[in-house]
Amino acid sequence: MKQIVLRAALAAAPKASDFEMIDVPTPACPEGGVLARVLHLSLDPYVGARLRGRHMGEAAPQAGSGLIPGAAVVEIVQSRSALWSKGDLAHTMDAGWAELLALSANSLRRIDTDGIDPRAHLGVLGMPGLTAWAGMTQLARVGLGDVLLVDAAAGTVGGVAGQIARLKGGTAVGIAGGPAKCALVENVYRFAACVDYRAQGWETALDAVLRGPPTILFENVSTAMLATGLSRAAPYARVVLCGLAAHYQADGPPASVPAGLIIGKRASLHGLVVYDFYDRWDAFTAEVAPWVRSGDLVIAEDVVSGLEAAPALMETLMAGANTGKCVVDL
Amino acid sequence: MKQIVLRAALAAAPKASDFEMIDVPTPACPEGGVLARVLHLSLDPYVGARLRGRHMGEAAPQAGSGLIPGAAVVEIVQSRSALWSKGDLAHTMDAGWAELLALSANSLRRIDTDGIDPRAHLGVLGMPGLTAWAGMTQLARVGLGDVLLVDAAAGTVGGVAGQIARLKGGTAVGIAGGPAKCALVENVYRFAACVDYRAQGWETALDAVLRGPPTILFENVSTAMLATGLSRAAPYARVVLCGLAAHYQADGPPASVPAGLIIGKRASLHGLVVYDFYDRWDAFTAEVAPWVRSGDLVIAEDVVSGLEAAPALMETLMAGANTGKCVVDL
Repeated sequence: MKQIVLRAALAAAPKASDFEMIDVPTPACPEGGVLARVLHLSLDPYVGARLRGRHMGEAAPQAGSGLIPGAAVVEIVQSRSALWSKGDLAHTMDAGWAELLALSANSLRRIDTDGIDPRAHLGVLGMPGLTAWAGMTQLARVGLGDVLLVDAAAGTVGGVAGQIARLKGGTAVGIAGGPAKCALVENVYRFAACVDYRAQGWETALDAVLRGPPTILFENVSTAMLATGLSRAAPYARVVLCGLAAHYQADGPPASVPAGLIIGKRASLHGLVVYDFYDRWDAFTAEVAPWVRSGDLVIAEDVVSGLEAAPALMETLMAGANTGKCVVDL
Repeated sequence: MKQIVLRAALAAAPKASDFEMIDVPTPACPEGGVLARVLHLSLDPYVGARLRGRHMGEAAPQAGSGLIPGAAVVEIVQSRSALWSKGDLAHTMDAGWAELLALSANSLRRIDTDGIDPRAHLGVLGMPGLTAWAGMTQLARVGLGDVLLVDAAAGTVGGVAGQIARLKGGTAVGIAGGPAKCALVENVYRFAACVDYRAQGWETALDAVLRGPPTILFENVSTAMLATGLSRAAPYARVVLCGLAAHYQADGPPASVPAGLIIGKRASLHGLVVYDFYDRWDAFTAEVAPWVRSGDLVIAEDVVSGLEAAPALMETLMAGANTGKCVVDL
């Protein structure tokens, strides 16, 4: 079978040329587990940091042989578990860039495909969606009248966060890079507004679209962006500190949050690590799946075909040049 | 009457020589208000920043004439308010370094002196006590089994915070400067332990006394100290960002909190401004006054006599060379 590996240890954000496809033996079906075929492979920003050993203390995959990690929707092709049968579809966080995977039964989660595209389980109903839901409903406790300001708003986490704000009776204002992403956020994700941070005078534009000071900030990008939001926030603003994408690949000083603004705004900041919410996946699905089925909550996808297309899409994702959730169909 | 004013605008933390005592006309009793004599004047660290216009956006007092602000316990000497009679004792946040004050009726709060020293209303039952209570009970929601780490632990805010932790079924570990303050914190405030941050190897000493990772951090000093605590904190630690005394007089870059630690620890940070809790003063008193009356909650005092002694005590306080709550008896 085919698998993609790193050519060498990475010294910077991964580019397409950092990967190579190799032939490896098909793994055996483990006792109590399954052999599964990858149908849809998810590419996510955290993988860029993970490949350099900079994510949650997990080691980078071995160059030349290690599995590039990623979530996937898989189809069971052989089962030695009473829980799974051949042909079942499942979601797993323990997948990677390979055609076939040996997986333990408890790393699989059954997925609902009744009126829901299987790929949605990588995005809006996958880990990014869970991240947005956890931040918005479990930490920030979004409700009627809230004004959310979220950056990387065209990304799956940001896009879902804003749509949840709308569906819960609040208003979402997004920040994204470039007119195409802003149009997606406004027209497809139906935020009240989205501001292009690459445009000159964008902070003035942000002030113009904010009809009231943000009561919730959902930070995905950087502490500089957080300071921009916090300086405009309402007193007692709730801040979800979810990700710092701009810092993951940077070698500068550690990211830090201005303490004076936290005190001055009486803000509450909450660090969010999505792993902590895996045990609430059922509650998340119960709330979000109906919105997905009805079309109230959507996420654009950048889909490519064939495992060999993964490296180039990963480079696009790392450069922020994607528009939607990045998925590789195998 | 006598009043103390600034000789000139301050360029650094106030010293005794920055003040002078002058004679001014006794103010008239305002319509609907009172004329009150200052009995006990509170000196508090925030006044140092306030005198330089660096506190909550309030202007510094005018050199040569402006009232140096401070809380006080006062006695009504003349009343044009139906709410107050000659001889009543009251607490006010609108006092200052003068013998007599013209005050509006609504800037006065009646005080409970049944088994409670009037001076306690400047410390443990005053604004510093309210600050500690708000942070511990309203923001961090301290409870059984919590481990509190608090710095400036010999100060009124820190000392009350730790005692509230103990009285609520938790454990308090303090950080303070010098053996005398640490002895006060351990022996009088009955913290489980107090570590002297001026001693060599103090972080190792801190690790030795922490029997479990802190679940609550109460920050009064600096973001460097906060990082020290946060790196040792339990996951989901609650952080009260109360004050940054070390930064108030500094002219360096703005204080900032390491974002990676907030996310890594899934910490919740809460900015605390005590003004927001003035409307909960009755709830605070109801909970804390019984502990003061029973002697379960105590704060040491540095008391000097005479308004003319205020400048030297202020200099002592600014240098951190006081041991207890600084009070001037008039």
